[in-house]
Amino acid sequence: MTRGENRQILLQRRPDGALRESDFALAASPMPEIRAGQFLLRNACFSLDAGFRKWMNAGADDNYLSAMALGAPVQSIVLGHVTESLHADFPVGSLVLARASWEEFSALDGSDFAQKLEHDGSFPLHEFVAALGPTGMTAYFGLLDVGRPRAGDTVLVSAAGGAVGSVVGQIAKILGCRTVGITSSPEKCRWLTDELGYDAAINHRDPAGLAAAMRETMPDGFDVYFDNVGGAMLDEAVRHMKLGARVVLCGAIADYDHNDRESGMFHMWEFIVKRASAAGFMFSDYVARYPEAVRDLSQWLRDGRLKSVVDIRHGIAETPKAFCDMLSGASRGKCIVQL
Amino acid sequence: MTRGENRQILLQRRPDGALRESDFALAASPMPEIRAGQFLLRNACFSLDAGFRKWMNAGADDNYLSAMALGAPVQSIVLGHVTESLHADFPVGSLVLARASWEEFSALDGSDFAQKLEHDGSFPLHEFVAALGPTGMTAYFGLLDVGRPRAGDTVLVSAAGGAVGSVVGQIAKILGCRTVGITSSPEKCRWLTDELGYDAAINHRDPAGLAAAMRETMPDGFDVYFDNVGGAMLDEAVRHMKLGARVVLCGAIADYDHNDRESGMFHMWEFIVKRASAAGFMFSDYVARYPEAVRDLSQWLRDGRLKSVVDIRHGIAETPKAFCDMLSGASRGKCIVQL
Repeated sequence: MTRGENRQILLQRRPDGALRESDFALAASPMPEIRAGQFLLRNACFSLDAGFRKWMNAGADDNYLSAMALGAPVQSIVLGHVTESLHADFPVGSLVLARASWEEFSALDGSDFAQKLEHDGSFPLHEFVAALGPTGMTAYFGLLDVGRPRAGDTVLVSAAGGAVGSVVGQIAKILGCRTVGITSSPEKCRWLTDELGYDAAINHRDPAGLAAAMRETMPDGFDVYFDNVGGAMLDEAVRHMKLGARVVLCGAIADYDHNDRESGMFHMWEFIVKRASAAGFMFSDYVARYPEAVRDLSQWLRDGRLKSVVDIRHGIAETPKAFCDMLSGASRGKCIVQL
Repeated sequence: MTRGENRQILLQRRPDGALRESDFALAASPMPEIRAGQFLLRNACFSLDAGFRKWMNAGADDNYLSAMALGAPVQSIVLGHVTESLHADFPVGSLVLARASWEEFSALDGSDFAQKLEHDGSFPLHEFVAALGPTGMTAYFGLLDVGRPRAGDTVLVSAAGGAVGSVVGQIAKILGCRTVGITSSPEKCRWLTDELGYDAAINHRDPAGLAAAMRETMPDGFDVYFDNVGGAMLDEAVRHMKLGARVVLCGAIADYDHNDRESGMFHMWEFIVKRASAAGFMFSDYVARYPEAVRDLSQWLRDGRLKSVVDIRHGIAETPKAFCDMLSGASRGKCIVQL
């Protein structure tokens, strides 16, 4: 029996600054054969997460992940069904969220992140990589645990219409906060206030400047900044902190294309005079508390108080464009490739 | 009766980058006359604190202090005795620590920071601006409350031989930590390890580079960084954080001469993958807890476990040079002008 092909998206070359579709290549390798202790996942969705951009750089090894290898399939969080299994914990038919790659089939052994999910059909499958998946967990624990907002607080969100940002803004409203979102066009600003419930929106490309827009939308500053961007936007934001403000460091897109020496922080002094703090986190540290987040998030989805915003692209060949669109702000909400 | 002169040091011009003695001028004004509700302080010591450099810049107003006025006496923490009083809380003879100016006599009304001290003679007077004053309070609460070190932790300190740094390094040793100090010459490195008890020292001007020195002295990174410098040094330090590291933002000398676009932070991403945090603070928020700090610090001074390092200069005319020496690293420990 021929096992056929396994189409993959390879990291063809190291990105030089801003990512381009030509940094990737579609290829086909033989279908993987599983060994004892492994299972074969037929991938249904790729979760496109901006953070993975960082590990495409040479020497990007850190204590979390290694730099991706050139010519190898690109690492990603994926959602799939087990179609063959030699692993007792992952029988055929299981729905699994795992760290794998942009490929149709992945042979895994469960030693890296791999979580078996229950799926009773009450939400569409893709929701498990969106509001009920890593995106939702990141928004929930980052905002509640690191940001610690109180009702009445002003919560500023960057990449406010992106995967995590769109959930953070809505949770903050549910908690009784005033929300201000930063996005990249007047159209997206209108969408933030009209559809996602933000109290105010800032277009960071507005020629009037970010500083003026922050002063206008937050005359007294913010209590919490949920930061998905880093760099110069973070540097400007810290000049608008209230006393005791908390900055949630969730993403640092500005650091990923690391040849931009202007995208730095030059106002750390503000943290001193404002007695403010900044803290990073990873959703994967909260595994033990996922049920609490899933309970709240699925209730809010059912109530209609939380809208899940997804941008679904179809077919593995669309993955490079989808990932570039997400990083450049051309997508809204969670960007997902469905196979 | 002629009341004589009151010699003062004025801010003559706005510093252009690095501070120069010529930015200041010695002048004399008439001795102030006190009104109802005021008292006259005959200043005995000026506390030279690097943070005040910031407020010498134009537009440096923040929620803590306003930018200093050109042509006016330079703001400073001072220690003095009350010689005339029309204020019931500050009778003649009181010893007072206050925010005033570089001048021989200050007319104050107690509405700004002004703290009456008990002095039983068991410590020299200048100790109340050093280990038992703002310097000691800053070191104590910044390290214990913000840094939260545990025995066995590695604690990195910048400006490690300076006013606050020299106390922080010694407290961290008393708490059972391993200490690494950053300073500006091989001689000061030897002094840090031989006299102040640091386990290792780094000369940040060493041509081999800061990164290599940090890797060598802290192969596993640090748990706490007590940062008095900010800028490029902070940016390099965050690349050596352990998981869950805490950065205490105490000073940001690198930000004060704010025309240096290289002295920024470009590695905020590290806070995310290391789940680390940075927080600023001000010693003046801890007034209610001063007795706790004074009790511990004076006990350690008496036991000989804490050495108070002071650089005392004599005469008001020496103040500009003393302040420049402190900022450039040419002084050791707490720099004080005695009148």
